[in-house]
Amino acid sequence: MSASPALPPAHVLDRVIRGALQEDLGDVGDLTSLFTLPVGATAKATFRARASGRVAGAALLPAVFAALDPAVRVRLVAPDGSDVAPLDAIAEVSGAAAGVLAGERVALNLLCRLCGVATLTRAYVAAVDGLIARIAHTRKTTPGLRALEIYAVQCGGGSSHRFGLNDAVLIKDNHVAVAGGVGPALMAVRARAGHMVHVSVEVDSLDQLAEALRYSPDVVLLDNFSIPDLERAVRLVGSRCVTEASGGVSLESVRAIAETGVDVISVGALTHSAPALDIGLDVGKQE
Amino acid sequence: MSASPALPPAHVLDRVIRGALQEDLGDVGDLTSLFTLPVGATAKATFRARASGRVAGAALLPAVFAALDPAVRVRLVAPDGSDVAPLDAIAEVSGAAAGVLAGERVALNLLCRLCGVATLTRAYVAAVDGLIARIAHTRKTTPGLRALEIYAVQCGGGSSHRFGLNDAVLIKDNHVAVAGGVGPALMAVRARAGHMVHVSVEVDSLDQLAEALRYSPDVVLLDNFSIPDLERAVRLVGSRCVTEASGGVSLESVRAIAETGVDVISVGALTHSAPALDIGLDVGKQE
Amino acid sequence: MSASPALPPAHVLDRVIRGALQEDLGDVGDLTSLFTLPVGATAKATFRARASGRVAGAALLPAVFAALDPAVRVRLVAPDGSDVAPLDAIAEVSGAAAGVLAGERVALNLLCRLCGVATLTRAYVAAVDGLIARIAHTRKTTPGLRALEIYAVQCGGGSSHRFGLNDAVLIKDNHVAVAGGVGPALMAVRARAGHMVHVSVEVDSLDQLAEALRYSPDVVLLDNFSIPDLERAVRLVGSRCVTEASGGVSLESVRAIAETGVDVISVGALTHSAPALDIGLDVGKQE
Amino acid sequence: MSASPALPPAHVLDRVIRGALQEDLGDVGDLTSLFTLPVGATAKATFRARASGRVAGAALLPAVFAALDPAVRVRLVAPDGSDVAPLDAIAEVSGAAAGVLAGERVALNLLCRLCGVATLTRAYVAAVDGLIARIAHTRKTTPGLRALEIYAVQCGGGSSHRFGLNDAVLIKDNHVAVAGGVGPALMAVRARAGHMVHVSVEVDSLDQLAEALRYSPDVVLLDNFSIPDLERAVRLVGSRCVTEASGGVSLESVRAIAETGVDVISVGALTHSAPALDIGLDVGKQE
Amino acid sequence: MSASPALPPAHVLDRVIRGALQEDLGDVGDLTSLFTLPVGATAKATFRARASGRVAGAALLPAVFAALDPAVRVRLVAPDGSDVAPLDAIAEVSGAAAGVLAGERVALNLLCRLCGVATLTRAYVAAVDGLIARIAHTRKTTPGLRALEIYAVQCGGGSSHRFGLNDAVLIKDNHVAVAGGVGPALMAVRARAGHMVHVSVEVDSLDQLAEALRYSPDVVLLDNFSIPDLERAVRLVGSRCVTEASGGVSLESVRAIAETGVDVISVGALTHSAPALDIGLDVGKQE
Amino acid sequence: MSASPALPPAHVLDRVIRGALQEDLGDVGDLTSLFTLPVGATAKATFRARASGRVAGAALLPAVFAALDPAVRVRLVAPDGSDVAPLDAIAEVSGAAAGVLAGERVALNLLCRLCGVATLTRAYVAAVDGLIARIAHTRKTTPGLRALEIYAVQCGGGSSHRFGLNDAVLIKDNHVAVAGGVGPALMAVRARAGHMVHVSVEVDSLDQLAEALRYSPDVVLLDNFSIPDLERAVRLVGSRCVTEASGGVSLESVRAIAETGVDVISVGALTHSAPALDIGLDVGKQE
Repeated sequence: MSASPALPPAHVLDRVIRGALQEDLGDVGDLTSLFTLPVGATAKATFRARASGRVAGAALLPAVFAALDPAVRVRLVAPDGSDVAPLDAIAEVSGAAAGVLAGERVALNLLCRLCGVATLTRAYVAAVDGLIARIAHTRKTTPGLRALEIYAVQCGGGSSHRFGLNDAVLIKDNHVAVAGGVGPALMAVRARAGHMVHVSVEVDSLDQLAEALRYSPDVVLLDNFSIPDLERAVRLVGSRCVTEASGGVSLESVRAIAETGVDVISVGALTHSAPALDIGLDVGKQE
Repeated sequence: MSASPALPPAHVLDRVIRGALQEDLGDVGDLTSLFTLPVGATAKATFRARASGRVAGAALLPAVFAALDPAVRVRLVAPDGSDVAPLDAIAEVSGAAAGVLAGERVALNLLCRLCGVATLTRAYVAAVDGLIARIAHTRKTTPGLRALEIYAVQCGGGSSHRFGLNDAVLIKDNHVAVAGGVGPALMAVRARAGHMVHVSVEVDSLDQLAEALRYSPDVVLLDNFSIPDLERAVRLVGSRCVTEASGGVSLESVRAIAETGVDVISVGALTHSAPALDIGLDVGKQE
Repeated sequence: MSASPALPPAHVLDRVIRGALQEDLGDVGDLTSLFTLPVGATAKATFRARASGRVAGAALLPAVFAALDPAVRVRLVAPDGSDVAPLDAIAEVSGAAAGVLAGERVALNLLCRLCGVATLTRAYVAAVDGLIARIAHTRKTTPGLRALEIYAVQCGGGSSHRFGLNDAVLIKDNHVAVAGGVGPALMAVRARAGHMVHVSVEVDSLDQLAEALRYSPDVVLLDNFSIPDLERAVRLVGSRCVTEASGGVSLESVRAIAETGVDVISVGALTHSAPALDIGLDVGKQE
Repeated sequence: MSASPALPPAHVLDRVIRGALQEDLGDVGDLTSLFTLPVGATAKATFRARASGRVAGAALLPAVFAALDPAVRVRLVAPDGSDVAPLDAIAEVSGAAAGVLAGERVALNLLCRLCGVATLTRAYVAAVDGLIARIAHTRKTTPGLRALEIYAVQCGGGSSHRFGLNDAVLIKDNHVAVAGGVGPALMAVRARAGHMVHVSVEVDSLDQLAEALRYSPDVVLLDNFSIPDLERAVRLVGSRCVTEASGGVSLESVRAIAETGVDVISVGALTHSAPALDIGLDVGKQE
Repeated sequence: MSASPALPPAHVLDRVIRGALQEDLGDVGDLTSLFTLPVGATAKATFRARASGRVAGAALLPAVFAALDPAVRVRLVAPDGSDVAPLDAIAEVSGAAAGVLAGERVALNLLCRLCGVATLTRAYVAAVDGLIARIAHTRKTTPGLRALEIYAVQCGGGSSHRFGLNDAVLIKDNHVAVAGGVGPALMAVRARAGHMVHVSVEVDSLDQLAEALRYSPDVVLLDNFSIPDLERAVRLVGSRCVTEASGGVSLESVRAIAETGVDVISVGALTHSAPALDIGLDVGKQE
Repeated sequence: MSASPALPPAHVLDRVIRGALQEDLGDVGDLTSLFTLPVGATAKATFRARASGRVAGAALLPAVFAALDPAVRVRLVAPDGSDVAPLDAIAEVSGAAAGVLAGERVALNLLCRLCGVATLTRAYVAAVDGLIARIAHTRKTTPGLRALEIYAVQCGGGSSHRFGLNDAVLIKDNHVAVAGGVGPALMAVRARAGHMVHVSVEVDSLDQLAEALRYSPDVVLLDNFSIPDLERAVRLVGSRCVTEASGGVSLESVRAIAETGVDVISVGALTHSAPALDIGLDVGKQE
């Protein structure tokens, strides 16, 4: 049984890729290729890493080029989830030069971003190696690309959180404030939510944690706890529910947080601040 | 006359915001607010910077919340293009708590990213202060968000480049390779392009530059030139066309590049690797 | 705190209503009104029940007519969740006769269907009155209308299940067959699913139930159990997880099933076979 | 020459199927299959009737599965328009287990509903066997699915009515009320409608019928007439136009209505209240 | 009672206008206005005819500008269906100069085309003044604009034909050829079509007309008949059905055709070859 | 190297063709073919010119028919850019008669319009034969079809102008009026526009031209100049920028305008008033 992540459904890929092509090509297309390429020119090009990283998004490349020219061929060399070093090939693309060049930037924009997310996730996962803590994403994703960025987190070895507001309950400080406390908020959820909904509650102190545990949440989100408080929290919770730490997590601090024994560490930076991985497309005339 | 940037057209904002809300809320909506908020609860909340930066995207906030609940009110405190310090308010939002909380994450995801782009741009612009060089974006943008990211670059004091493949000619190394040289490529463009198309050509050596200048391009893109070669190139070009430097630009290197006298420095990192600006939404019950 | 259900997000209502109007009006519009109505004719009309039932979908009426003519006014008389008897008014609509008549059928098609779902749900809920069992919907909904039909179930007093394949794990017989047993399937889920995912497993025998319980599912779905086996299953589970019964549930059998003590009874017929509630629109010239 | 009904155009099928898959899979996909299925698992499954009925919608199955995984194969066993008994196979689907299982519910939701409509129509058609009356649908269809439901009515042996407000004139009581009588309404139509528009008028008494006939409508819709009045109406009309009966039609009453000699009997229940046909998907590992 | 034509439904206007604005503004907007207009500049502008014609499409102007800037105001001076001479004002628009100028070309492109269609239709209608023949459009319309062009034909005094393939039967020579004759084709339609479908048949000779009349079509389309044959055809048909002439109709020939007594003359040129009416937008600074 | 124009991107073709089919077929399809064609009937048909002209749009035909029936085959006989005389075949289409006939009108509506544009452009281009002037389109295009109409202009030998408001600056009289003169407008552009934007300015007198030239525009648009003034303007400009003439251009006047030596003549009539080329589809049963 494999742990390899699954691409989002075809309708998501289709929507993202069509949107990106419409954005870059407009209604007119690639003027430069139109004006400079000899009729019938073909090209063979290689997506090649210029830095070390974890691949994510290579699986999108065939669909990007197929949307422009179904006759363009893409061969994956380093599939999603694999590691690359500088100069390593990720994929090769060949066919009519106009199609290859028209798709270059959309392909790279998707690939560099998703590899960037996967590469940063890999670093966090490596930092907690040997401990039980999983590294999870948050909802701090790029509007329109959430499904792909979550996929990239998984390619980096990270774990999933809720996808959106619609698939789990996460009671945050703002809900607690309006509802009048952790207890009233959790009681309201128990009374009103369906039986298939997972419930997490964010707490910011050990007292609030103790109150929350009286209502049997599925997850407690320990927000901005100090390391000693995290340790106390983990002991207090025991096996009663899942513990998740968030807030102020960095590559420097993540191992200490994991050593407290929390089950999950969620890191917004995986998706909101990952620098793009440097990847280029080296094009040559096709022999 | 103002230099303040203009928001993309309404249909672009509408497309991005609807897409982001569909992504985060699905067909179901915000389960947590539904289950925890008392009927009729209202909230007043403040978008507040947690780090110093340049604001971009605050102008989107009214449309985000209006798409959820037309009765929610947004008041902009720090408009796009202004600077904020930690704890400064950017905007206030008030109305039904369900609408305020359902829009929180989409609003923040847009705002933090665009402020991040503007803030990084501001740093590059400041680094070349007093010199003639403009800092420009590239097409290395987030798929689906290009118009907004370019707007954020402008809020940061940056300048525009071409938007897509369809609105200007930029002959890159790959076109040159397939066309058989800078000269043939430029000649083909002159023969085939309409009279309203701007033409830029990328060159990677002084020799190639000299060849390019024989065909009167509107812009020469000096790719990965050393500082001495940039100086020579600027002298060689004189006032014949616009000079643009790109490749290997960082906050450390940008001033030296600008001191060569180039007109434009294009920086992919402005959009592909800007970390999000840290901004929070502090929510209280509305008095 | 209210248990009243929340309408799906505005983008869902907008999509359904626009689609329905495009379908009924085409690109041409309402030929009959165009040809027969005097210029400037106005009308006042009443949506009136012709049978007893529970109202759901009245809250959509303002948006239906506003999409045709923003000047048409809708006044809700019997809001969603209320009960109506024959001849009771549900809502009144007034304005230009062309707008009122053009929206009549789309409005009724939505209203009659959703009231039908709510009314059938109400009957199931009444049948288990005083017992702990909740009546829940399934995913056997009308393509395109799931969010609205789930809302109608809630208006009828029913409870929610998972919305789609993407928001919870429900291991069914087919997954068990391919995975090689309940145990392997649950172990795989535990190893691979994120910490925010609820897990339910369908079992069809007490033996399979016993195996499932070893893996601490959040819910066990007791499929097509006899009443005695349901009683044994409820005792076996105790408070370890939620129990859900499904299969062969009818208005005749549901109380006996509920008396076994199961927590949830899911009923596909609520959405796949509810007859429409008979509702008419009585139109008069506006005085 | 065949009387077999034609599927709606490809763009309609595409819109319905994509919408249904987006609704059920969201942006994430089928979590359960993702977590439980071994890599490379294939499945062969059979859509099998669990009750007697008329098939409609099997022709959609290839498109449903192709939208998820073009490599999944569908073989139709009982094509649309054929009759099935319990345990009869309708179609077989085989390929990657993930694709087969992800499409199961969308496929069944479409198939069960459309077979339900066809099966109920078949019953009405059988009830008037040997008489001239055709059984026709109305516009009381499910929003978004009208074209498919009309197709299902045709698979059940029923006949078509107008599709929407845009393709024929049907003057109803409400138009008559606003226009000031049957005569003024029909005169207005004659003066203003194009020459390619069919005109039907609803009448609720023999007097109104007599008035209507003075204006040569193409169809008279006899609404809620008693059986004796229907007989009188049919005699009165003779061959001057088509007669259609509607209102209060049930499986019990339909034959008596047909025996009056009316040409068409329209039945809203065909589409607004047909229970789903019980159909299951039996999945096995592919040998 | 009015004969003024009705605008297509709001969803059609919305689709056309949004598509046109996306096409002209792209994701970026109006660069020239952005760069040249002083902040806060307002403008008042007048749509003014530069040639004589019939107005159609002025009713779209408010929606065009509202889509760009809801604060722009439009005042209609010469409503749809009225006649204008050179220099006559059609509408005035006022508000922010950026909105007025950004919408100018889309507004004019719609207005000039629709006025062109209405003006040409007016000429055909005038040419048959005093005769019974109506001038009707065909389906030879601009893809995407059919509903608006039919509306323009009506503004010009023309009459409607079928809108599309889906709202009436028109048996053309190609159907006759494949079906094996006019008789078989009409018999097949009678056997298979619903009772609400109008049936027209195209004939190209008096013999074919005689054959067609045996099957009681609603309309006979006399294609490319000579004037004497048209006269014979009209006599032959009498009051049995509507007669329509088509083929080779020009402003020169149309009166002679109408004098044969045909009911309808359909003219493809109304929509496929009408030159745009010359209209300008005169802009001034708003005082 | 070829000067043959390139089709717009696939997403544009897809959008136009799907929209046109939805418009003509609705949700129902082609009633006439459905009722009249024998089961399994095939047809072979030829698109044949009935007048002389230049072909444009034949390249769309495969996509039109594939959208209806992927098994229909299209063979291009006279490709885009070639010339046809009456009775010349343009393309042959063969396959199921239902698909061939359902696509006929959409195919012809696109083809006749685009050939009309190309044919009129060819006439203008021929009229300036031997002179340096290029014939260019304007933005006076059909809403929704701009990319295709520009392609047709290119098939006719014409040259491109800016596509939309977003890809170049063109300062028109209205901008000049609001900005306070040609000088202020051009200065504002120079200060605010990015370095990749082409700048054209419309002038209506030699004085205004002289003022404009002080700001080094890329193009001057000489609007409604007399022939002598055009000659003076061309001499005044020399090689400083591109000269474009517009306004009052007709087939009669265009050569005299071109003889003044202007570089470009833009002609709105190419797209706003080109009559459709007469083309028919001759269908036969397939042998």
